[in-house]
Amino acid sequence: MPHGTDSLLLQMFTIFVWAKVFGELFERMNLPAVLGEILAGVILGPYATRFILPGDTINSIAEVGAVFLLFTVGLETRPSDLIRVGRLSLRVAVAGVVLPFACGFVFLRLNHEVAHEAVFVAAAMVATSVGVTARILRDLNAHRSRSARIILGAAVFDDILGMLLLGVLVSIASTGGIRWWRLGLVSAEAIGFALFMIFVAPSVVDRLEPGIQQMQTQDAPLVLALALCLGLSVAATWIGMAAIIGAFFAGLAFADYSPRWNLEPRAQAINQFLAPYFFFTMGSRLDLSVFSRSVVLMALGISALAVISKIAGCGLPLYREGWRPALQVGVGMTPRGEVALIVALIGLQMNMISQRAYAIVMVMTAVTTVLPAPLLRILYAQNGAGPGAGEQAEAQTISGQLG
Amino acid sequence: MPHGTDSLLLQMFTIFVWAKVFGELFERMNLPAVLGEILAGVILGPYATRFILPGDTINSIAEVGAVFLLFTVGLETRPSDLIRVGRLSLRVAVAGVVLPFACGFVFLRLNHEVAHEAVFVAAAMVATSVGVTARILRDLNAHRSRSARIILGAAVFDDILGMLLLGVLVSIASTGGIRWWRLGLVSAEAIGFALFMIFVAPSVVDRLEPGIQQMQTQDAPLVLALALCLGLSVAATWIGMAAIIGAFFAGLAFADYSPRWNLEPRAQAINQFLAPYFFFTMGSRLDLSVFSRSVVLMALGISALAVISKIAGCGLPLYREGWRPALQVGVGMTPRGEVALIVALIGLQMNMISQRAYAIVMVMTAVTTVLPAPLLRILYAQNGAGPGAGEQAEAQTISGQLG
Repeated sequence: MPHGTDSLLLQMFTIFVWAKVFGELFERMNLPAVLGEILAGVILGPYATRFILPGDTINSIAEVGAVFLLFTVGLETRPSDLIRVGRLSLRVAVAGVVLPFACGFVFLRLNHEVAHEAVFVAAAMVATSVGVTARILRDLNAHRSRSARIILGAAVFDDILGMLLLGVLVSIASTGGIRWWRLGLVSAEAIGFALFMIFVAPSVVDRLEPGIQQMQTQDAPLVLALALCLGLSVAATWIGMAAIIGAFFAGLAFADYSPRWNLEPRAQAINQFLAPYFFFTMGSRLDLSVFSRSVVLMALGISALAVISKIAGCGLPLYREGWRPALQVGVGMTPRGEVALIVALIGLQMNMISQRAYAIVMVMTAVTTVLPAPLLRILYAQNGAGPGAGEQAEAQTISGQLG
Repeated sequence: MPHGTDSLLLQMFTIFVWAKVFGELFERMNLPAVLGEILAGVILGPYATRFILPGDTINSIAEVGAVFLLFTVGLETRPSDLIRVGRLSLRVAVAGVVLPFACGFVFLRLNHEVAHEAVFVAAAMVATSVGVTARILRDLNAHRSRSARIILGAAVFDDILGMLLLGVLVSIASTGGIRWWRLGLVSAEAIGFALFMIFVAPSVVDRLEPGIQQMQTQDAPLVLALALCLGLSVAATWIGMAAIIGAFFAGLAFADYSPRWNLEPRAQAINQFLAPYFFFTMGSRLDLSVFSRSVVLMALGISALAVISKIAGCGLPLYREGWRPALQVGVGMTPRGEVALIVALIGLQMNMISQRAYAIVMVMTAVTTVLPAPLLRILYAQNGAGPGAGEQAEAQTISGQLG
């Protein structure tokens, strides 16, 4: 084989192993593996030891990895749950999106950041990554409690709201300049796309089912899901949104059929292979030299704001139920994850944010992902974890789909 | 996202869909899907309609696809079966490797082809792809017969012998010129590698098992298998063999653990995603303009020789049992597949074979893959399909692992 492929395989092997080794070490310290995989990229990448310099092909594989990452997130977001989880979760999600975005934007503008950078960083403060919380709650045996149910329900809406916001941002950024009519048009487009994928697409998949079962192709449902994932990613870029938004909604369209067609473990296998390249290259893009005193202070400020505004926003709708459930839900919704990172990456690639802002988002993601574990242990320690009667089965269904 | 990734996703989507559409059409005509995926590449590629021109990244993805393809082939080749299937299968495999290689080499040399080209084309005539046969036998409900058991057993050895031959070839080719001491050294190296992976590696995996179960990483067995697949691919290139040989033996090392760790469906999912890129680009490299009258004649000659020599070689060890079982085994072993294609591709990339020889191997692969289906239907039609008493359980185990 030509030399190019040999060295590609070597680079793929090295990145995969180091990412997984760091991930394993982090897991053993009760920290999310994702942060370990990113740290591997930071330490071994071009801005630190220069041990691994990801080439163009690795970067392409990483972006395909991001597409599949969001596809599996979509696959875990069942449209049928959206109706079931109810209005309280919706209110938690909306307040938990609006408040961090507003706080972040105002804070950055007050610190004299340019508008487009402030918008992107604020957008990165929005999307909750509930995987970390779901796992902690299961460790604490609190995953059937009422507050866990609200968190897992809100996370479903939260994902969609985050995607909508990103869709609008990318669309605006790629045409340059914010105009109100354009903002309205793009928002309508993004909402229309989301509504179509939530309410129409699953029934299209439903009608396709007899046809899929007659297909001779091996693993036809998986093949069709992969094709739709790639196809909607392309379609999303055509209407000016990010590819991952299409992938997310492709996953969502198949989410209700995922258990019957055994899609999730197989999509996860592709994810297990490709996602490390995404997280590693995310880390490798972090320029450590930008961490001046002012950037560190700004990063800590944004991190604190991201935690407080999320707790406040998500806790607010529960204020009547007392401080404990409000705090449980607020803290549970705190972790940011892959969506925050992708927003920052897209901002960096579109020259919408600087290396400084990229570094700030990375710190914010790390802080918000690490902090909830000890806090949740305290909040669920005494009496808040009892499962509500009659809610167990439903909560189990919802939490069951969250890795 | 940058324009590059967008167009990569578009190309990935287009290739994936067209490959699968052609595969589905072929399946409906009772032809192997793989041939359809290759034909898609031929028709849509640079030498015909020029509809899709695979770029560097697609070619890299295709080669990673080839690595995973051979990894899953290895995963279906259980070392523990090698001992069980017995000497008769071993004799069938060896004769079915030696005779086609010798016939092909002599035929090509008599037709004044250069030695290195003759060696590579002859090597492509060796490896049986038993997936097609296994499926036909199951359709005919003959997969528990004695002859089916011999075929499936011989295919296990055949894979390993094919890999050994390729390993030696690549190693010789990359150093240039055939010297006897070098041939001996490389053969010893390849056989040593194979023996290590067959007899030592599975017990290493066995000892690792408690450690794997204690790992915190999600899907630890899959992650470890993927890491070994990439690692041994790199190692194989270091000792001068092809990357896919390492991947094949990595699969083989995990084959006995595949059912317990549920590895196969998940490795297959990665395969379902990546293999179409390999087969499509295989087709897209076929220069249709080389098909002069003499090349067509040569291709048909090689195809006929590939069929006859395999039937003769594999049938010979069964000559005492009458012509029917001998023919059943010989015809069942006839289909060539992914290994033949990979040998040709590596030959092309190493400038060991010409576009003409590449085209000849493609035709040979197509003919040997399509022909057995009608022949096997005739051979198993009357009385040859009765399952031998007491052999059912074992045959079931062996055939169960073949897609």
